[in-house]
Order: sequence, then structure tokens, then C-alpha cells
Amino acid sequence: MIDKQILLLPGPTPVPPQVALALARPAINHRGPEFKALWEEVTVGLQDVFQTRSEVVILTASGTAGMEAAVANFVSPGEKVLAVSIGAFGERFIQIARAFGVETEVMAFPYGQAADPDAIAARLAADKGQEIKAVLVQHNETSTGVLNDIQAISRARGNHPALLIVDSISGLAAADLPMDAWHVDVVIAGSQKAFMLPPGLTMLAVNERAWQAAEKCTNQRFYLDIKKARNSGLKGQTPFTPAVPLLFGLQESLRLLREETLAGSFARHALMRTMVRAGARALGLELLADDRVASPAVTAVCVPAGMQPAAIIKPLREEFGVVVAGGQGEVKDRVFRIGHLGYVSCSDVLAGLAALENVLADAGAAVSRGAAVAAAGAILNESIGGK
Amino acid sequence: MIDKQILLLPGPTPVPPQVALALARPAINHRGPEFKALWEEVTVGLQDVFQTRSEVVILTASGTAGMEAAVANFVSPGEKVLAVSIGAFGERFIQIARAFGVETEVMAFPYGQAADPDAIAARLAADKGQEIKAVLVQHNETSTGVLNDIQAISRARGNHPALLIVDSISGLAAADLPMDAWHVDVVIAGSQKAFMLPPGLTMLAVNERAWQAAEKCTNQRFYLDIKKARNSGLKGQTPFTPAVPLLFGLQESLRLLREETLAGSFARHALMRTMVRAGARALGLELLADDRVASPAVTAVCVPAGMQPAAIIKPLREEFGVVVAGGQGEVKDRVFRIGHLGYVSCSDVLAGLAALENVLADAGAAVSRGAAVAAAGAILNESIGGK
Repeated sequence: MIDKQILLLPGPTPVPPQVALALARPAINHRGPEFKALWEEVTVGLQDVFQTRSEVVILTASGTAGMEAAVANFVSPGEKVLAVSIGAFGERFIQIARAFGVETEVMAFPYGQAADPDAIAARLAADKGQEIKAVLVQHNETSTGVLNDIQAISRARGNHPALLIVDSISGLAAADLPMDAWHVDVVIAGSQKAFMLPPGLTMLAVNERAWQAAEKCTNQRFYLDIKKARNSGLKGQTPFTPAVPLLFGLQESLRLLREETLAGSFARHALMRTMVRAGARALGLELLADDRVASPAVTAVCVPAGMQPAAIIKPLREEFGVVVAGGQGEVKDRVFRIGHLGYVSCSDVLAGLAALENVLADAGAAVSRGAAVAAAGAILNESIGGK
Repeated sequence: MIDKQILLLPGPTPVPPQVALALARPAINHRGPEFKALWEEVTVGLQDVFQTRSEVVILTASGTAGMEAAVANFVSPGEKVLAVSIGAFGERFIQIARAFGVETEVMAFPYGQAADPDAIAARLAADKGQEIKAVLVQHNETSTGVLNDIQAISRARGNHPALLIVDSISGLAAADLPMDAWHVDVVIAGSQKAFMLPPGLTMLAVNERAWQAAEKCTNQRFYLDIKKARNSGLKGQTPFTPAVPLLFGLQESLRLLREETLAGSFARHALMRTMVRAGARALGLELLADDRVASPAVTAVCVPAGMQPAAIIKPLREEFGVVVAGGQGEVKDRVFRIGHLGYVSCSDVLAGLAALENVLADAGAAVSRGAAVAAAGAILNESIGGK
């Protein structure tokens, strides 16, 4: 049974069986009527998940390409952006903006903390010449397990015309992000997160203000040109050959999300977050992020003093088939990350915590076997009782 | 049975059942040991198909992104390329080069013709200052069904140091392209063609001369940065999350190709080409490309005078489930295209020709039912008898 794994990763997520089988459907012509019907269903379904009436563009590429598209289509070389970074994916946004000739002012917060909306408000208020064309920020920072307050960040703009471009690759459908209600201009998502799909698609919802910026943008792009995608989309096509199996999968996963409801998905992710945090704390483990900003998608757990992350990650995988992630960026050697994202159930979380207890106990840590599962189980019971 | 289709497209190809099921395998951690083993198997397997000892880079994106990567990683803004175009994908290469600030000199040949190696030789010989940094050319032009003579084009360079960058997205594994033996510097492939996979991956084989050019290249790219891909590849990873199911599929399709042998795949494609051409001619149809340059992957068939392509394509799909492609570029209204690429058998070709006979006869064309199948069958019998 060594091959039977429980993936507790911040993406890729396990894939529901009905989605997996959809991937295996016979090929179709991506220029034909079968594709058009598929395309129309999934683009409308995505609008519900993005909570928007704006158009959604789907690109055959993974999330980083979505971040690149969000720079290359909206900000021209020499224009300025404010890149708000709270971790490794914030740093990636900075790298991309600079690679595309954008003047990038960095507002960085320490790993484990959320961005301070007041600091953003102050910076934008000071930008009297309105030189800042866009604010780039993560919704959920995958490297630290911190959720930014996008509503507050949006309000922080006041009357400043900067576009708000939000990387919600690991956030969308796991945490609430009503794009239209919160006046977010561009939201980026990825298939392998709460959408429960394999990697290979990135989706961008783009509001009218952002489309206008795209019209004037002179940055370089071809494959990731969202205007081309928009034009082809009107015909129920894509400008370049799309990954059709992933779109079949998306059709199924959107049906699953519709059945669960978005609110149900948010609640499930929040519950799993609380279970993981209670379980880890019952083992005496510290968490990188404070409760107030804790991500519903992933929890970064500090390794006990004197241990390396690999001493936990490796036996979890090899002895229990429980797959968690290492750290990223500047906390690479200090944390491991438990994902509770996508097609993960509360029982998966309990199994993962049970394995973690055993691994720590076997490594000689002063933990009492059963403590994590008991603490997380209590949270679960409370949640069920409260229904 | 309306859903049972025979795809005779120049990509996406039908997907073999073992490949389709591989797509449905459980998710794995793309940063873990399971992925590393998969990665190593497929990159080595790809070298066999590219007939190279050079490194192969796999990008999660479709073929156009591979073409973009072949510009953005090797040619800097302001540098000059010679873009040899024989159809719509040649034109796309020109668009991409220009979008990335490359000075693009076009050498265009009429739709239906191959590039003239002597003209390329003369142009490069006249480039005394060696301003041309790269020659961009298609191996198999999907829009016209013409195969370029890459060996002759490579020889046409003489001592000129320009890189030879070949788009073989619809050619590789369907027609011979021994990259190392023919001194091709960069070859681009795509998953949904002779690899028999769904769309979503593009692969580039890059020789040492081209890697050196990449080191100096100042063009803009991030997601499609092949140096990042090379560095991650050394660790058995990708810089950004890859489409793992397609890599599982690639593992299976490489096994199938190994079993068939490359020579076997070339012969099968060539046989299907000859069958299609004989069949179409038996119906009095003209072919866009001359026999000497005819593609083994796709045949562009001229529609009879007074007919629109849709009058053939639509009933083929609706009445027979046979899916062929329309035209592209400047022959869009003059041809339809029969793909015989990837997971297509001689029986699929016969069924397609049988449907075509019926559709033409029903439309009142002066064709004799059975003629195409008889002509193609004779070719097939001859081939079998010759074994």
C-alpha cells in the first residue's frame, strides 16, 4: 500500500474520481461545437466562483503564467506598481514585474504576517501624481499560510485609480473573495488548488477597468495575451490549443463546487484549518501565522528546535503515505506545510495528524500520542454538533 | 452513437486508452521522489524521439508557447531573424518574433509550397555582417500539409552562425528529424500531435550552441524561461507546477512509440498520407501540396469549385462522426484538412474516406461511391504485401 497516499499539500490537491475520469474522456475538436458548449459552461461556472459578472479568461499554463499575464497585460514597461509581499509568492510577483520592465516598488511584510492595509493606504495617499498603476498582492500566501484582508486592501485605495491585482491562486474557493463586491480588478486562480483539478490551467477574471488598461498596455506577450483570449472566447474558442482534458475536469469540479456551494467550501476549508491548528498545538508545535490571519488552505508549522523539516516530511511520506510540503523562501528550513486544500476531507486531516503524532514521538519529541487527533476531533465534533 | 467520433485532425489527435487512463492516475507531489522518477523517464524518452543527446525542456503550455519560448530565450530585442514562412504557422512565428521586439525579415513562399533551401542559402551568404541571428522555420506546416526539407535548409546555412530553430510541433515523430545529425539547434514539439497526448505540453530540445545564445539573450520571459527549466530539471523538478497528468500520459505514449519504433511511426504516417492522397484523387479532388513535399501528418484537400468547406466538414461530422479540420490563413475558404497524425490507424483513414465519398455524392458531386476507399485500400494492400 506504499502507493496509497494522502496528499496534504497546498496544491496539487487530490483529484475527485469523477474529475479524474473526466480527464480520460475521448478527445474532441477544440474548434468544433462540442468544445463551444464545454467552454460556455465552464466560463459561466467560473464567474460564480469568482463572484463576478466580469469575463473570465482561461489559459493553458500553470499559476505563475497567470501572474505573468496579470503583469504583461495590464502594466507597461516603465510604469510603476506597488508590490505588496508577505512571502515567496509575493517575491515571485516582484520578479515577474521586474522581468517585464515594470518599475516595482516593494512593500514587504515579514513572513508569517499579513499586509497592513493602513500602510498601503498611506502609500497610495502619498502618491499624489498617481504614478502607481497597480497594486499586486496575494490573497492567500501559499508559502506562509497567511490570508490577506483583500477587502481592507481594496478600501485602502480610496480614490486612487491603481488597479488591484490579486493572486488568489491558492485562495479562490477556499476563502471568500467576492471580486465585484470588493472592487477587485483582476483575480488570478489556478486549477490545482481549491478547484480540485490537476495543474495546467490558470484563470483570470478581469473587470472593465482592467480591460481598459489592457487596451493601452504595451508590454510584451503573445501566448498569454488576454485580449486574444477574449476575442476567441466570444466564438467559444481559445486562440491557441487548450488543454481540453483539464476543461472536462473543470466542468466536473465546478459541478461539485456548485453542489457543495461556495459557502460550504469556505466552511470546510476553515474547519480543516482550525482542526490542523488545534492538532499541531496539542503536540506543542508553533505555527508561523497568527490565528487572526491564518489561511484556510495551508498551515505552516514550525519544526521543533534542533529538527530539520525533512526529519518530519520524509517519514510522514515513507511510513504513512502522508505527503506534506516543505518550506519556501526565507522560512524554508524552519517550517513544513500541511495543505488542507481542495479535495481534502476532515478524515484526511485526522489521518495526517495521527501520522504526525507518531513521527514526532518516534523522533523522541515530548508528545503524547493521540493528543493531536483528540484536539482536532473535538473541533470537528463541535462543528458537527453546531449544525 | 452520435458521440462516437473518428478524429482526423492535424491535432489534437485521438488519445490511446492506456494514455487516457494514465491521465486519471492519482495526484502526486511534483516536488517529491515519485515525480523525479517520472521526470527522468520522460526526459530521456524524449531525447530518443528528438534524436538528440541535447537537453529537452518540457513546458506546461501548448505549442504556441513553445514557439514563443524559442524566440524569447534565443533572440534579443533588436536582433535580426530570418523567418521562413510557408503558411499560417510561419506567419505566427513572424507575429511572435515581432511581438518580442525582434527585427524579422520574412522570406515567404506561397501556401502549398515548401521553402526553397537555395533561396535561404543565397540570403545567408549575402549576410556578410552575420546580422541574422536565427532562422525560424516550420518542419511540417500544419495549415498547408507541406513538409519542409530541414536537412537541406540546415546545409543551406553553410558557415553562417545563425541558429536553426525548427517548429516541428506537428512533425516530430510523424516525419524524420534527426536533430543532432542534421545540426538543428532548437526543435519545438507539442503533446497533441504524433505524441498522441492531449494538448497542454510543449517540449523544446536545445543544443549547446543554443544554450549559449540563451545565456546572452536579454528578451523578456519568466514562465517560459528555459534556463529556469534547465536548472530545475537537474533536480528532477520544474520551476513552476507542471501538468502532472500529461506527464503520466507522456510516459505511456513514449512507451508506445518505443514499441512501434520511430521508423515504424514514420512509415505509418507516410502510408496514411499516401492512402489519403490516393483516395482524394480518386474522387477527383485536388490537393494543395505537391506529392514531393506532401506532409505525412495532414493533407489539405481543395474543395470542389462552387462548394464551401463547411458543406463537406459539417455533414462529415454530423452524419458520420468523422471530424476533419477547416482551412487556415489565406486558404481558409479553399481547403479542408484531413489529419492522419498520432493515434490514427489505416482503418480510421478508410472510414474517413468512405464518409467523404458519401458526403460528396450526396452533395451532387460526380464521384463514384467506393472509389476513394478502393484506391486507398490498394495502397494499403500493396504496403502489407510488401512487408
